[in-house]
Amino acid sequence: MFRQISILAPGLLGGSVAQAARARGLAKQIVIWARRPEVRLALRGQPWCDATADSPAAAVRDADLIVLAPPVDRIAPLTAEIADHVAPGALVTDVGSVKAEISRLGHAALSGRAHFVGSHPMAGSAHTGWENASPDLFAHRVCFVTPRPDTDPAAAERVARFWRELGSEVVTVAPDAHDEIVAHISHLPQVLATTLCTFLAARQPGWRNFAGGGLRDTTRIAASDPAMWRAILEQNRDEILRALRAFQDELQGFSAALANRDYLELTARLERGKTFREQFRPLP
Amino acid sequence: MFRQISILAPGLLGGSVAQAARARGLAKQIVIWARRPEVRLALRGQPWCDATADSPAAAVRDADLIVLAPPVDRIAPLTAEIADHVAPGALVTDVGSVKAEISRLGHAALSGRAHFVGSHPMAGSAHTGWENASPDLFAHRVCFVTPRPDTDPAAAERVARFWRELGSEVVTVAPDAHDEIVAHISHLPQVLATTLCTFLAARQPGWRNFAGGGLRDTTRIAASDPAMWRAILEQNRDEILRALRAFQDELQGFSAALANRDYLELTARLERGKTFREQFRPLP
Repeated sequence: MFRQISILAPGLLGGSVAQAARARGLAKQIVIWARRPEVRLALRGQPWCDATADSPAAAVRDADLIVLAPPVDRIAPLTAEIADHVAPGALVTDVGSVKAEISRLGHAALSGRAHFVGSHPMAGSAHTGWENASPDLFAHRVCFVTPRPDTDPAAAERVARFWRELGSEVVTVAPDAHDEIVAHISHLPQVLATTLCTFLAARQPGWRNFAGGGLRDTTRIAASDPAMWRAILEQNRDEILRALRAFQDELQGFSAALANRDYLELTARLERGKTFREQFRPLP
Repeated sequence: MFRQISILAPGLLGGSVAQAARARGLAKQIVIWARRPEVRLALRGQPWCDATADSPAAAVRDADLIVLAPPVDRIAPLTAEIADHVAPGALVTDVGSVKAEISRLGHAALSGRAHFVGSHPMAGSAHTGWENASPDLFAHRVCFVTPRPDTDPAAAERVARFWRELGSEVVTVAPDAHDEIVAHISHLPQVLATTLCTFLAARQPGWRNFAGGGLRDTTRIAASDPAMWRAILEQNRDEILRALRAFQDELQGFSAALANRDYLELTARLERGKTFREQFRPLP
């Protein structure tokens, strides 16, 4: 139970943190800062928002848990902005999709005063914005918690416990390891979905009218927010490039096997892919 | 209304044709041939199967519409097998995913006696086999009908009307054009889903436990039947290779833009992908 959870710049994820924390009784007081005054006004009417603040500094002053929820490229600047205003010993976390730089700068900005522990809940929706928030968004979802070697272990454990109490399955990894993992399992799939769409759009856009379930599924995430993904590409450029180049080699292997009519090799690849996919954990 | 529809080697698609034709009153008599005696026995109890036949030849003798539903590499051999037994003027179609070779061989085998008109209903499911058939499988789905220049137009139109009566939206294109289209919108997505899975399996299979919705959607079709896809890769090799190589160029363009930190170009690609994806027709 926190005395005050402050949530800064809530969108879908920040709003859902507020709703889930209220639903599970994890905070006496929930305070929210949003950049736009009309959003603050709208939030004041919500049962999961006890007060709004007019500035990040005012929002964080009395909080023992601070959740930073702006776009990924705004997290480090926001951490710097609140650094002189957080209560001593407060926990600060975020919900950004990339962790190494944010964790390094967050730790440096708060060092000696409060604890920065990065988080990345693997939850999202095509419907963004706090209006689409849900108290169950994190239930049964993986949430990465990414302490650095110099992070206070007790602080990391308290952040992990918070996400568990919101229903998430917490995976604790170092920030660099996190960024390598998501480059492969999240950012590379986005690049492929986007590229399949730009490819087909250039080739013959009308073919989309013939799309079956396979193309629909494979390209669904191409409809994600370009600004959000631009920021992710920028923040995780090196890991994504590495994953992308290795994937290109794997794809060239498929292409070469097909060019060589090596149907044994192609069948082996189809079977390995099927086996891998079938071992995904079923969704609850 | 057909006097007798004969369906050969029914799986999910063939069984669904029988159920849909019965539900919509399109056939006085539905006769089915399946290779395995125990399947024939089981089919005899179904309300959408009036009789089973012990051989392809026996099944087609009195039919005015014959639907060939075996795996794609068995369609041309099966057409050759029935060629001397079909009634004069009968319509023969199929449900295979690749059309050029099947249409050429089908036309040649039946020429002067009956009409071969290729079909490809874009319907399917992870749950294969006639036991999973449904009378609504084709409703609101695209079905390609692929007459050759030398196909009797009246025969092509009767096959198109049959699929429309099953609820499909018929798209009539030449066999070669069909194979180019599906190489892009169906076969390439399969190659990408399979390759993303084999890549991740080789890299670190345990990461699949962290899969969010994006990876799940993007890889879903990797769980498809390897034997079926091996046959499709073989039958449509040239078109798939062409599509794959052009896609590899598009992906290299993305990779190069990221390597060059060209975020304007990357944003433009994300936006083009989003626009393309959002213009998919909504599913009914």
